Amino acid sequence: MSSIKSIAIIGGTHGNELTGVHIIQSLKKRHENPVFDTFNFTYVIANPTAVEQNTRFIDVDLNRQFSVENLASLDTTLVELNIAKLLNQQFGPKQDSKTDLVIDIHNTTSAMGATLILLEDSPFYRNMGGYLKAHMPSANILLEDEIAYLEHPYLCTIGQHGIMLELGAQPQGVSRMDILLACEEMLDHILTYCDLYNQNTLPEIPEFTAYRLLDVVKFPLDEANEVAGLVHENMLDRDYERVKIGDPIFRMFDGTEVLLTGEQAIYPHFINEAAYKNSKVAFATALKFKW
Amino acid sequence: MSSIKSIAIIGGTHGNELTGVHIIQSLKKRHENPVFDTFNFTYVIANPTAVEQNTRFIDVDLNRQFSVENLASLDTTLVELNIAKLLNQQFGPKQDSKTDLVIDIHNTTSAMGATLILLEDSPFYRNMGGYLKAHMPSANILLEDEIAYLEHPYLCTIGQHGIMLELGAQPQGVSRMDILLACEEMLDHILTYCDLYNQNTLPEIPEFTAYRLLDVVKFPLDEANEVAGLVHENMLDRDYERVKIGDPIFRMFDGTEVLLTGEQAIYPHFINEAAYKNSKVAFATALKFKW
Repeated sequence: MSSIKSIAIIGGTHGNELTGVHIIQSLKKRHENPVFDTFNFTYVIANPTAVEQNTRFIDVDLNRQFSVENLASLDTTLVELNIAKLLNQQFGPKQDSKTDLVIDIHNTTSAMGATLILLEDSPFYRNMGGYLKAHMPSANILLEDEIAYLEHPYLCTIGQHGIMLELGAQPQGVSRMDILLACEEMLDHILTYCDLYNQNTLPEIPEFTAYRLLDVVKFPLDEANEVAGLVHENMLDRDYERVKIGDPIFRMFDGTEVLLTGEQAIYPHFINEAAYKNSKVAFATALKFKW
Repeated sequence: MSSIKSIAIIGGTHGNELTGVHIIQSLKKRHENPVFDTFNFTYVIANPTAVEQNTRFIDVDLNRQFSVENLASLDTTLVELNIAKLLNQQFGPKQDSKTDLVIDIHNTTSAMGATLILLEDSPFYRNMGGYLKAHMPSANILLEDEIAYLEHPYLCTIGQHGIMLELGAQPQGVSRMDILLACEEMLDHILTYCDLYNQNTLPEIPEFTAYRLLDVVKFPLDEANEVAGLVHENMLDRDYERVKIGDPIFRMFDGTEVLLTGEQAIYPHFINEAAYKNSKVAFATALKFKW
């Protein structure tokens, strides 16, 4: 197995998600990196202009610009597409990267706690999820492997390996100390995992509970295509909790309820994520599995 | 005593605070108003452009434009100052208003629950607070009477009487059903209070617990004037809970704590309000009192 010799830690990919920004700022001030012998570090605030303006992005969502097609486009008019190409030069290039692992730090307004998002079902990622879960039982492991790793448009895919840390609930533009501490803990476990992986001294990782992305569910709309109801009050702040067929998922503004239909229970997450409001996404669904 | 014959309900004063927006949209769709015999209604979304753009404001904070000086200014370059003058024509004018009560609905990213903000210590407001507290014990009553009613720059002061409903925690751009239901309940009690007031059939309102605005506390800053720490994790989501001298109020990014100094316990609120981040305000303080 190839070892993880270079790690990039990235914050501020979305300018109003402040945990990563504070972590990178702290790393810069500290003048010395977290001490691990088997790899070296780089770190950067990806979209400083968006951070300055306290907004998710200026022109387009930076974390959706890293498809192979986008990175090859000749368009130079979009702030975030230009940043994507520069980050791809600095840390990538995607498909043949000089960086072994890219860790991209995000916040969500959903109560997803400390979630590690993995994009591929491989031993490296599986064991990382299991190691984290064993050392930080409150963490959630979310596998988004509905498409191949390199097909994802996410920033972290410019690395040979790439992961996202997703921490919530934290409103956009707010920075919570509990969330920052959880992110630091998560990061510490993941770096330790990489160090053990490099030294080939990883313990056996037993089976653990994880979630696999299934679908997204949109808000109910009225005839004018306006949102006609909200996520049901019973589901609020209960990301990753089971919702069975027949359970209420929306309450309409007229007071009536919409119940879950379909064939299986779901595990909602990204419930009420502010950034998904424009696309009218109310939450994502997952299946729970033993990994 | 003069009765409350006309009530204006206003939402969307800040475009990314969605509870009021949904309440006004529902009122508009319903084609009939809440039924009370003793007063009539008007309602409006104050800043529809900001709502459309999912932002607090376009140029300046609309809810700070209603000072007598601003309303008399000849500047026509600021979107929100123009709106302020038009709302003042429609519902005011301030100091000689045709509207007996203006109710302005807000959200906060702080865990302030259902808070009724009152701007004057008079029997009308005191009894409104007490009536609400008696019928909705979870509600908080916050008195901001550090300056005279008409000196406040808030939208609601264009009414003969004006109050703000402040509901949280709700991230900007998100709409939570539990918060919407709490706002509807609050509104219903306040309208019922006005109806009883008009009929001179109010019950005796016993003493109740309220909070009186004291001050604001800024984030600790470093030599470069950057935020150097966050609200202490012990204080998060604990708006209106007592903090004594010596309790930690900030944790710095280097891990050290800042303790409360001074001469009296405080009751923090607006903890981590996203909109106050630019002015580096971490929270407001209040004293608790029997009203």
